[in-house]
Amino acid sequence: MPKKTTVRDYIRTIVDFPHEGIMFRDVTTLFADARGFRMAIDQMLHPYAGMRIDKVVGLEARGFILGGAIAHQLSVGFVPIRKKGKLPGAVISEHYTLEYGEAVVEIHDDAIQPGEKILVVDDLLATGGTAAAGIKLVERLGGEIVSCAFVIDLPDLGGRRVLEKLGMDVHALCEFEGE
Amino acid sequence: MPKKTTVRDYIRTIVDFPHEGIMFRDVTTLFADARGFRMAIDQMLHPYAGMRIDKVVGLEARGFILGGAIAHQLSVGFVPIRKKGKLPGAVISEHYTLEYGEAVVEIHDDAIQPGEKILVVDDLLATGGTAAAGIKLVERLGGEIVSCAFVIDLPDLGGRRVLEKLGMDVHALCEFEGE
Repeated sequence: MPKKTTVRDYIRTIVDFPHEGIMFRDVTTLFADARGFRMAIDQMLHPYAGMRIDKVVGLEARGFILGGAIAHQLSVGFVPIRKKGKLPGAVISEHYTLEYGEAVVEIHDDAIQPGEKILVVDDLLATGGTAAAGIKLVERLGGEIVSCAFVIDLPDLGGRRVLEKLGMDVHALCEFEGE
Repeated sequence: MPKKTTVRDYIRTIVDFPHEGIMFRDVTTLFADARGFRMAIDQMLHPYAGMRIDKVVGLEARGFILGGAIAHQLSVGFVPIRKKGKLPGAVISEHYTLEYGEAVVEIHDDAIQPGEKILVVDDLLATGGTAAAGIKLVERLGGEIVSCAFVIDLPDLGGRRVLEKLGMDVHALCEFEGE
């Protein structure tokens, strides 16, 4: 096995998951490696050195792993955005379209205070649909999004443009083409 | 609102979620608070000072938030245990019974090497069914479980006894009775 020197080297590709024709970029091999996981968290935080961040918002479910680590490193709180019906308290919801059909994400309606500076975190930026819905939830609560941080950007799927059109600053540690 | 001094003080109770008669102990209010979240992670790690831990295993989904933070704090890797069909690579599975019906949890079959020292993390110990299934997965891969760490123990539901019968060391930061 070639020596792993970058975050990208730790990411495994699974062919035909979750269905035929998809090259699934699997970050669990990155997270399971002590050096890889630390490198990913450190590099995700690097662009924000010295900036005010009040809370980290993570998207279910892999964004919880990253977001928990990043919030702890920053000594700030963590807020989950979850699929419909998972959060126990009063929520606000956003619908968004998937390749086939529609999905809904939710946030607790008291999880963010107006004016709080928010970092949005997930593992993968693909079409940007989930992230865009998450951004709308945070902004509806009055949160001011500092940036959106991902491990992987799939540039062929255009998610970065979708988020930049919403006025977002977007960072990703690596790209995979041919999606 | 009374001053919050303990981890338990930050946990919100939602009545009748996910169905009537359940007092749901909601850790999202703990995680969203900078001081609360840091206190929880620090206190969960306190019993293991000086002990060898090679990897943190977190149970989907709230165990990902805690597990990501704890793995990062320890500078070790993080391994997710997920519900059936969510992990992209080759997995091993464990079935367990729920109040109504059955559930399945999975782990990547190459996520743990034999002899690795493992800390298992989740937010809540209730009947212990999910945790017991997760413990079996780790042990089938040859992992040696150092301990199981939770934020909340619901002693009336007997999960601690279930895990202790499996030979586990169990720690929780607080208890809620009357479940």
